[in-house]
Amino acid sequence: MAPSSFFHLLLIFTMSATTIESMPTFFPRATYHSSLLKQAKDSKPKIPYKTHYFPQLLDHFTFQPQSSKIFYQKYLINNQYWRKGGPIFVYTGNEGEIEWFAANTGFMLDIAPKFHALLVFIEHRFYGESMPFGKHSYKSAKTLGYLNSQQALADFAVLIRSLKQNLSSEASPVVVFGGSYGGMLAAWFRLKYPHIAIGALASSAPILQFDNITPWSSFYDAVSQDYKDASLNCYEVIKGSWAELDALSAQKQGLAELSRTFRTCKNLKSMDPLPAYPVQAMCKIIDEFSPGATKLSRVFAAASLYYNYLQTEKCFDLGNGEDSHGLNGWDWQACTEMVMPMTCSSESMFPPSSFSYQEFADNCMKNYGVAPRPHWITTEFGGSRIEQVLKKSGSNIIFSNGMQDPWSRGSVLKNISASIVALVTEKGAHHVDFRSATKEDPDWLINQRRQEVEIIQKWIDEYYKDINHG
Amino acid sequence: MAPSSFFHLLLIFTMSATTIESMPTFFPRATYHSSLLKQAKDSKPKIPYKTHYFPQLLDHFTFQPQSSKIFYQKYLINNQYWRKGGPIFVYTGNEGEIEWFAANTGFMLDIAPKFHALLVFIEHRFYGESMPFGKHSYKSAKTLGYLNSQQALADFAVLIRSLKQNLSSEASPVVVFGGSYGGMLAAWFRLKYPHIAIGALASSAPILQFDNITPWSSFYDAVSQDYKDASLNCYEVIKGSWAELDALSAQKQGLAELSRTFRTCKNLKSMDPLPAYPVQAMCKIIDEFSPGATKLSRVFAAASLYYNYLQTEKCFDLGNGEDSHGLNGWDWQACTEMVMPMTCSSESMFPPSSFSYQEFADNCMKNYGVAPRPHWITTEFGGSRIEQVLKKSGSNIIFSNGMQDPWSRGSVLKNISASIVALVTEKGAHHVDFRSATKEDPDWLINQRRQEVEIIQKWIDEYYKDINHG
Repeated sequence: MAPSSFFHLLLIFTMSATTIESMPTFFPRATYHSSLLKQAKDSKPKIPYKTHYFPQLLDHFTFQPQSSKIFYQKYLINNQYWRKGGPIFVYTGNEGEIEWFAANTGFMLDIAPKFHALLVFIEHRFYGESMPFGKHSYKSAKTLGYLNSQQALADFAVLIRSLKQNLSSEASPVVVFGGSYGGMLAAWFRLKYPHIAIGALASSAPILQFDNITPWSSFYDAVSQDYKDASLNCYEVIKGSWAELDALSAQKQGLAELSRTFRTCKNLKSMDPLPAYPVQAMCKIIDEFSPGATKLSRVFAAASLYYNYLQTEKCFDLGNGEDSHGLNGWDWQACTEMVMPMTCSSESMFPPSSFSYQEFADNCMKNYGVAPRPHWITTEFGGSRIEQVLKKSGSNIIFSNGMQDPWSRGSVLKNISASIVALVTEKGAHHVDFRSATKEDPDWLINQRRQEVEIIQKWIDEYYKDINHG
Repeated sequence: MAPSSFFHLLLIFTMSATTIESMPTFFPRATYHSSLLKQAKDSKPKIPYKTHYFPQLLDHFTFQPQSSKIFYQKYLINNQYWRKGGPIFVYTGNEGEIEWFAANTGFMLDIAPKFHALLVFIEHRFYGESMPFGKHSYKSAKTLGYLNSQQALADFAVLIRSLKQNLSSEASPVVVFGGSYGGMLAAWFRLKYPHIAIGALASSAPILQFDNITPWSSFYDAVSQDYKDASLNCYEVIKGSWAELDALSAQKQGLAELSRTFRTCKNLKSMDPLPAYPVQAMCKIIDEFSPGATKLSRVFAAASLYYNYLQTEKCFDLGNGEDSHGLNGWDWQACTEMVMPMTCSSESMFPPSSFSYQEFADNCMKNYGVAPRPHWITTEFGGSRIEQVLKKSGSNIIFSNGMQDPWSRGSVLKNISASIVALVTEKGAHHVDFRSATKEDPDWLINQRRQEVEIIQKWIDEYYKDINHG
């Protein structure tokens, strides 16, 4: 059994937001696992959107005859609150089916009436139904080559422009929204296409998790800190469990025993909702477990929380982090452009590990036949000295982050200028501000969303003032 | 004989700058003719630069195994005035051999000592020696597909970043310079890669000559205005000569006579320098021609100025605007992304003409097997409502233009913000500010260059202040 199974488990708990809707979508490559997303494919959320398909150019940046190939890009629209000429709110889809992002971004639906806004969710190419080569889209590097962030941004630009023209609403201001990788896309879209979007709300967008801009250990240090904050004992139990795991694995019959232990999940009852504060809930189990038990057995017990939530028929696919369906989209992106090196420091609760670029690159070559371009994202989008650069050349971006989210460490956590601002909450999780408002929302969350609405209102007011009096 | 031969002639005169070095490089597609550039290939200017070649990625925006193909991109360096850590001035090469742009941009060499600047001239892919597929580069759409402005900008970004790293001078501020299409690239580079260039001097850069942003007749109206300004009679003679040309062409033997008239250029003597004010010189011949002569014969006489300058062995290749070498780079770009519709209004001195997009697109399909994407440049780089967009999201660009240059009408002629400024001179020609300073330079030109230097100095001062105290 690979320790990565544990990694995965602990990440789920730290990244999950406060409601059962939460579907974490954006994992570090080393711990990415498809089981979770597999479930998502089986059912679709009910959402108040109409589905459309846009004939999109496969390759925006070469002009070969073959590049005139088009594919059908899915997008969702809700116009029930829209007043013609009013703003258009666009969600820049990330690595998955667009319905899930629509379902998990209730914030946009909540604020649409106030703005009389049209809502548009655009699916990212090579995810969901937006497959340029149908079921062969993930077949090889030859098809996957067109899956990358620059092509995705150009898709958004072309689709938005066409949509505005079709609606005869060219002067409508467009604001882009995105969470996680979608948040990176939203921020980059505002920077690269300021003539198309007047502003961006980028929630939990780790645009600085590249090169050496953010320390490589920051992600797992942050995960560890979340556990430490919940319970120092819990942190120490988990930190100590790795040695026990190693010892057990080395014993004869040890692996069989581990497998047996994990398979008990088969017998668990129907799905329980994921607890509102999963890290705390997990630590509660660990802390309150029968005295004298091993660290490993405590961690196993806590894991049941996760299995119950997933309600998988089969049990956790141990020891193999690869998608049983073969190649997958995010792994491809991680192997080409989204190179985010991560390590575990000795301060973390994980076994210390380093990042070998050579090993990583060899794997990418083996799996996809491509060499990563580790410095490309920072060449294309920047990142170093971001304050100096963006205070002069950008505007109208909100970077919202919660410090409980380990990805926050790779995002923008300080105001850059009067209009490129950071909204940071101590207790926030991975793009929790994008969830639908509920009666249980804490004050800090209500306040964060209120600030976001106020800032977006300001962008829109300024835009109309400019075009009317400019 | 096609009227386009005359078009070409008149354009040369209006676009040529004030010195013999001037080598107009950027023609409207309809009048583009290779004869002029052909001459450029025969000899190379002597310039104080060292030649280097950079292994450049062929395709920055797809990650197919084939895209790992590299080509060698030429760039020129002069470090004689550079002080390590000092600024790097980069010329973003346009559609031709980079040596010519270096030779015609003496301004950068003139100001390098003051700034202790490193000078770099980067050749544009698919021009000069920077041929990704060697002599087969122009063979077909399959190879030419990689020739476009977005790939070119990415080339500049990758090369500059690598160069700074190799020089261990990562903190050096980079300022980009460009004239004509190179100026468009410089401006766009600052907008798209503000993390790489702190500012751009874009001379005679018609970034608004797309879609319907600038009236389609503005270019030829401006050419006509130049002639009208020189001499109303001259303007009227030229305007009237088309009818005579048509009448003569319709006569039996008329075409043969026209051909004979033009071929007299064979017997002309050695090359005369192009006059400092070619429009005026041409109009002088037209105005002072023997009384009673036809309009057509006056125009023919004036044309000798041009033939003398070109000193071609063969005579003007009449009636066929196509490059005898087959496909050429700029035509490809015009057929894909650089779609700049142009018409002749009845106010102009040219025969009225309209622009048929269908005809244009059909020709592109016939010649290259591709369909133009007429709205792509404005989708990728913007243009509409440029004041509103750039006053919020950009900074540090100088748009310099001379109103004698017909391209000026498609550029930015008004200040957009405190740091995106327009320097407009009434008498300036096509990027004349980029020429080496001479003792004969008029005050307005000296003044324009002084302003450019002051603004660039301000950008650099602010940059150092920011990184030292930011």
